[in-house]
Amino acid sequence: MKVTLHIHCPDQPGIISTVTQFFHNRGGNILYLDQHVDQEAGVFFMRLECDFAENDPELHGLRQTITAELAERYQMEWDLYQECIRPRMAIFVSKYNHCLYDLLSRFRSGELDVDIPFIISNHEDLRHIADQFEIPYHCIPVSKQHKAEAEAQQLALLKEKEVDFIVLARYMQIISPLLIEAYPNRIINIHHSFLPAFAGAKPYHAAFERGVKIIGATSHYVTEDLDAGPIIEQDVTAVSHVHTVRDFVAKGRDLEKIVLARAVKLHIAHKTMVYNNKTVIFY
Amino acid sequence: MKVTLHIHCPDQPGIISTVTQFFHNRGGNILYLDQHVDQEAGVFFMRLECDFAENDPELHGLRQTITAELAERYQMEWDLYQECIRPRMAIFVSKYNHCLYDLLSRFRSGELDVDIPFIISNHEDLRHIADQFEIPYHCIPVSKQHKAEAEAQQLALLKEKEVDFIVLARYMQIISPLLIEAYPNRIINIHHSFLPAFAGAKPYHAAFERGVKIIGATSHYVTEDLDAGPIIEQDVTAVSHVHTVRDFVAKGRDLEKIVLARAVKLHIAHKTMVYNNKTVIFY
Amino acid sequence: MKVTLHIHCPDQPGIISTVTQFFHNRGGNILYLDQHVDQEAGVFFMRLECDFAENDPELHGLRQTITAELAERYQMEWDLYQECIRPRMAIFVSKYNHCLYDLLSRFRSGELDVDIPFIISNHEDLRHIADQFEIPYHCIPVSKQHKAEAEAQQLALLKEKEVDFIVLARYMQIISPLLIEAYPNRIINIHHSFLPAFAGAKPYHAAFERGVKIIGATSHYVTEDLDAGPIIEQDVTAVSHVHTVRDFVAKGRDLEKIVLARAVKLHIAHKTMVYNNKTVIFY
Amino acid sequence: MKVTLHIHCPDQPGIISTVTQFFHNRGGNILYLDQHVDQEAGVFFMRLECDFAENDPELHGLRQTITAELAERYQMEWDLYQECIRPRMAIFVSKYNHCLYDLLSRFRSGELDVDIPFIISNHEDLRHIADQFEIPYHCIPVSKQHKAEAEAQQLALLKEKEVDFIVLARYMQIISPLLIEAYPNRIINIHHSFLPAFAGAKPYHAAFERGVKIIGATSHYVTEDLDAGPIIEQDVTAVSHVHTVRDFVAKGRDLEKIVLARAVKLHIAHKTMVYNNKTVIFY
Repeated sequence: MKVTLHIHCPDQPGIISTVTQFFHNRGGNILYLDQHVDQEAGVFFMRLECDFAENDPELHGLRQTITAELAERYQMEWDLYQECIRPRMAIFVSKYNHCLYDLLSRFRSGELDVDIPFIISNHEDLRHIADQFEIPYHCIPVSKQHKAEAEAQQLALLKEKEVDFIVLARYMQIISPLLIEAYPNRIINIHHSFLPAFAGAKPYHAAFERGVKIIGATSHYVTEDLDAGPIIEQDVTAVSHVHTVRDFVAKGRDLEKIVLARAVKLHIAHKTMVYNNKTVIFY
Repeated sequence: MKVTLHIHCPDQPGIISTVTQFFHNRGGNILYLDQHVDQEAGVFFMRLECDFAENDPELHGLRQTITAELAERYQMEWDLYQECIRPRMAIFVSKYNHCLYDLLSRFRSGELDVDIPFIISNHEDLRHIADQFEIPYHCIPVSKQHKAEAEAQQLALLKEKEVDFIVLARYMQIISPLLIEAYPNRIINIHHSFLPAFAGAKPYHAAFERGVKIIGATSHYVTEDLDAGPIIEQDVTAVSHVHTVRDFVAKGRDLEKIVLARAVKLHIAHKTMVYNNKTVIFY
Repeated sequence: MKVTLHIHCPDQPGIISTVTQFFHNRGGNILYLDQHVDQEAGVFFMRLECDFAENDPELHGLRQTITAELAERYQMEWDLYQECIRPRMAIFVSKYNHCLYDLLSRFRSGELDVDIPFIISNHEDLRHIADQFEIPYHCIPVSKQHKAEAEAQQLALLKEKEVDFIVLARYMQIISPLLIEAYPNRIINIHHSFLPAFAGAKPYHAAFERGVKIIGATSHYVTEDLDAGPIIEQDVTAVSHVHTVRDFVAKGRDLEKIVLARAVKLHIAHKTMVYNNKTVIFY
Repeated sequence: MKVTLHIHCPDQPGIISTVTQFFHNRGGNILYLDQHVDQEAGVFFMRLECDFAENDPELHGLRQTITAELAERYQMEWDLYQECIRPRMAIFVSKYNHCLYDLLSRFRSGELDVDIPFIISNHEDLRHIADQFEIPYHCIPVSKQHKAEAEAQQLALLKEKEVDFIVLARYMQIISPLLIEAYPNRIINIHHSFLPAFAGAKPYHAAFERGVKIIGATSHYVTEDLDAGPIIEQDVTAVSHVHTVRDFVAKGRDLEKIVLARAVKLHIAHKTMVYNNKTVIFY
């Protein structure tokens, strides 16, 4: 069975050799190792995939031994993921449907190795798509005066269904600190601009107004600073004076759905690590 | 002989047919016509290349007849360029050499159909490159207290050598309104970021800090708002966590020189029109 | 009401002015004109959008007047499209579902201005998707010995439902000359490579074997030469040694669906013209 | 002092941990490790950068100890590079100057950490550029009847000046097996197409004829099969029906020089490994 280990800690000599030795001595076969040192910050990052025999007794105590023999010694922050556990992903939407269609099509094709317990929306508009793909759909309207209640209701649903991470597939509400704290670096948003250009509302209009020759989309983890969280993935496409705002929006839809899907897949495969409001992506 | 006509005016029915008729009736053969309507602003743009027989007498009075029969009727702003006249281009540099090397190599290869009467710099550092390519080099230091004098000196040189347009090939000084007014939409700058992201100083450091996955370069006409003039050309390249600021700078150099050269070629070929702080680029 | 005119004919002076005059005299307002001359072949191309008043009597006889006053004089091949008529598009599929999901999602979102009378497949596999999107699905198995019958059946359906053009959304059968003749330059295929590299079967395997650093997808009109018809649209994405053939296929799926959708939209908007086995695309 | 180790060998458990232990035990600090397993071929690749104290006595016997303790045990093919040794690079050109200008500009800017003992050409045309950048230039004409002599002369020069690798900067002659054997995976070519499309002569003409929407350039190591060696780097740019063959050539020049420079830099930094006619590029 495959396990994936994420580590980051203060850089010092000998970490790679100690960690690889650790797994080798326990009979694990290292399938993949990638590492990175942020020289400025003096931080060491590692992602390691290791294969153990099915039912290897080593696996049971693995978390404890890592803590005792590696993590304390090197002041590591770390995570261990087991291949056999499918993460549970909730989708939040509002009225735009292209990212939702795209995610659900990929899900039904077996491209996303997750469970999707439900979709949450602040509108009824996309219920028919949820029905069409047979995913439960909860409409939780969000008004100014009842925002706190709506969020409590969202959180209750997320806890009840043991959701691991959330995808905002063009969800047009600001996420509250409550949810962000409950899902740190586990809420993935798609913003319809090449961040940090055109953060905030109506980025295609702003891009049109500025006369840019390239537009973009950015997928990032949600933090309390709007559109300022760690960037996971970006892509761009060329535009020109012949394109109207409407054309920007249409071209943008294709960018948004592809960029969001790539970020979601990286997250599912445990290929993203977050540090200092940036990501390390081990491809 | 080929002439190129640029027009913009309030949109109304019949302009294309009137203009094409105008040239056809005078024996001109229309080689190329491109047109654009900014629906929001209600403005019509046209670029037309027309071939006349060498020494065609029509050519002499062409400017007057355009004024009388077309421009007044449709309230056109327009320009007429004759193929036989090589534009005169000045280059401004400071200490970075990659854009200068690139422009001069292209010039010596016959890729740029211009004359280059001189290079101006506020430092001596790149004189050896000017010497190597046999272009006059004027070092005009720019200090806070003598800025006005330096600009007067620049302007005098530009006037003396009848310079048509200026290329800022990583010139690290802010251009004064004096020069901008003398060369409206005729000063081309290269900014080392994907504008409007990271305007101002040290954009690669800012991009690194923000953790973007793509960096860019932008060529634009210089206006009084710093890094906010009409964009001519942009391009981007992928980066990741493995790249340091130094790597951003190295990758950026290649973007900068290519993007600047493309913008310069578009300008030389009279393929750019400016309106509302945006460009219409007729490829 | 808007009409779109496509013209190609031997190049000669005066065509643009004659054609624009023609429409202007009949009270049409030219919204857009783009033109191209293939200098080598000496062929002139034009695409023109013209607005007439609703119920303008000129519209009735427009085809005859174009023939009489323009087409014969300049030996034009031409087409005239009226905005009010929605083209009818058939989709052919086999077992891969990503292009089908993508097209149907766009269709349901109102992004594709067509009718889809049915989907044809040589397998039952994707019927559930047709059902989910409520589009009729005809399974017509294609075996070596009954290929002719299958094609006759396809053709009968296409005629019965008055299909205008066909989209091969990863249809894994070779199209017979019978269908190609019935739909010249009206069958759009997506090939999963950067043509002309890796034509034929298993292009991702071949690309992997060759060790390329970029893979692509190509949408083209189907002709009798396999994978050699006029190219409408291409796009590419970077790969590296870390990617397996399986990764190529997954990355390729995203390219294929986006490239195919772009080609379909260009075709629907009458922005493609075909000449000498190449396309002229008026954006 | 930094050393860089390249390894490839049959895959088996324990290699990473053994190698990292090996360097750790000798007081080396591993700065960077990247590894790859070609699952199909069962081959393990590793690139490792390790820092030793200046004058560390371990460094003297390092090659012997690697052989004795690592290489034999795992049947490794391996290379060890020391930072302090600048590789010596020869440039071959014919008549096109853009790649030469670009390489020499980079060299003079300190961007390429090499020595350039000379340029070889089969023509006199570019001697003035060599003079301008003060690099020795040897004109060795290549005719059908004296090809063998010309190559002998080239090889003698290469040996005399202890050249480590060769860059063909648009050298328009086929390289003989003699040279290829002397410099296996150490001759870098730039081909002006997106290989394997349009191998051989006149690729831009062929691309134009085929009506592609994207053109490319490919840098690869030279093998005895023309344009079929291991690909190091590729890039592409969009074209359309408005572009003539001349435009393809002009756009291609920018691709060629950038792609070639990237490949040369990867080679200089020891980031390329070759196996089964493919490259592993450790960025």
